[in-house]
Order: sequence, then C-alpha cells, then structure tokens
Amino acid sequence: MKKIVVCCLAALIVGVTSTASAQFRNPEAAIKYRQSVMTVQGRAFYGSIGGMVNGRAPFDAKAAAESAELVRMLSQLPWVAFGPGTDKGASTDAKPAIWSEPAKFKELADKMQAAVAKLDAAAKTGSLDNLKAAYGPARDACKACHDAYTSQ
Amino acid sequence: MKKIVVCCLAALIVGVTSTASAQFRNPEAAIKYRQSVMTVQGRAFYGSIGGMVNGRAPFDAKAAAESAELVRMLSQLPWVAFGPGTDKGASTDAKPAIWSEPAKFKELADKMQAAVAKLDAAAKTGSLDNLKAAYGPARDACKACHDAYTSQ
Repeated sequence: MKKIVVCCLAALIVGVTSTASAQFRNPEAAIKYRQSVMTVQGRAFYGSIGGMVNGRAPFDAKAAAESAELVRMLSQLPWVAFGPGTDKGASTDAKPAIWSEPAKFKELADKMQAAVAKLDAAAKTGSLDNLKAAYGPARDACKACHDAYTSQ
Repeated sequence: MKKIVVCCLAALIVGVTSTASAQFRNPEAAIKYRQSVMTVQGRAFYGSIGGMVNGRAPFDAKAAAESAELVRMLSQLPWVAFGPGTDKGASTDAKPAIWSEPAKFKELADKMQAAVAKLDAAAKTGSLDNLKAAYGPARDACKACHDAYTSQ
C-alpha cells in the first residue's frame, strides 16, 4: 500500500493531466503493469476457462462468465503501457517490432480483443458448447500476437 | 504466450483437479500472481478512480464504473495465492503474520472486499459524490490490510 501511495504521489509530481490513464512514472512501471495484466489474464483464460473447456475442471457457468468478463476487461488495459520508450527499462519479452510496426501490432491486439469479446458473450449464454466454440479463436488470437511480438 | 502454455502444462503435470483455481505450480508463481493482481488493481483504484475523486482527472462516469467493476472483480482473486508455503519463494512484502494469524488476515481481506463492493455500487450510480463517499472507506480498508501485513 505504501508503495502504491508513493507511486501515485510520484505520478502527481511528474504532472498527471487529463490523460492520467496513459501515464506511468517510468518505463519499468509500464512494463510491470502490462506484464501484470497478462499474468492475471492468463490465469483466468488458460486456467479457469481453459480448465473447463479442456475438461480438467467441471463446467461452472457462473465462474466461466466471471472469468470471461474479467479477461475481456483486462484485454483493454495493457496497450497504454506500450508507449514510446517502454521497449526497455526492465526485463521484458516484448520485441522491438512492437514499436517499429505499431499498426500491425495494433491489428493483432484488436483481433485479440474482438475474439475475447466474443468469448465473453459466449460465456454469458451459460452454454459450455458456446464457450468451447469461442475459446479456440480467442486462444489463437492471443497466440498470434505473442508469437509475433514476444521473444518467449 | 509460450510461457503461459508451459505454465499450464506444468499445472497439468502436477495434477490439477476440480480445485484447479487454487493451484499454482510453485510459490514463485503464486507470489507473482497475487502481486500482479495488486498492481492492476492499484492502477485502477488509485490511478483511474483516485484521479477522478481527487480532481486530478475529469469525472468520467463510464470509466469510473468500469474501473470500479474491475477493482471489485480483482479484489476476489489474490487470496488463493496466499496458500501454505507461499510466504517465500520470490521477493515479497508479505509478512509472516499472514500465515500465523489467518483469521485476522481474512477479516481484513473481507472488509476490503466489502468496501470495494460498495465502491462498485456507488460508481454504478454515475454520481461523483457517491463515488467520493465510497472511495475513502475503500482506500482505508486497503490500507489497513497492507499496513498490517506488508513490510512496505
């Protein structure tokens, strides 16, 4: 908590304006944030939903819907943390191509968000079949972007 | 992505059952997960909502509601990652008292989740005054737990 408060004060000092949502105090903070989003998203997607889709866990419609909603919300967050200068500053698997071909990166990111929105809609129907049908395209959309733009 | 797939495969190998949601492949993964949840939550709470409440950013009812919903969802997630043996294994600010007095830890965690649920309800009303009224208690509930159970 104290660390977070210090972080917020630091953000104030460097001059947060109406574009506050885009601000990070340094590249390390941006990298940590986008990695954190991916970590939480990965567990909800591959662990929770993937577990049900692949039969490792019993289907729980409510849990699936909550996880899919969370994944959809998280899918909107990391992009602000790929700003100029955040290609280094902490350990990162992000490839330089993210910053040299931003349009292509955005295209894959947009496709992932669209696929995840469909997954969320499918989960809300309460049908495991619908969830399974939407899971593969979402997984492939995640993978396409990671294969192209991460080194691991 | 590949790292996540490897993680999921590792989870399978150690035997994920119907309690899959509680499984981490090792203490380091649990620590990384709970820290990631807090990082994402902190930005949504102190950055997005806090910015509006404290006048650093203009009030945007839709953004506030989305952030509060995200904070509420995230507030439910980290507890599974405080299992036995996760007091060490990676750099962590978590104090040993979390594992020696679990009932008290849970009490503060529950209070935080209740306060955050009220914040979410307040944000959904679309009123900045309601948001401001619920923000302080939520912030205090976060702080109470972090003051008691983290070393920073």
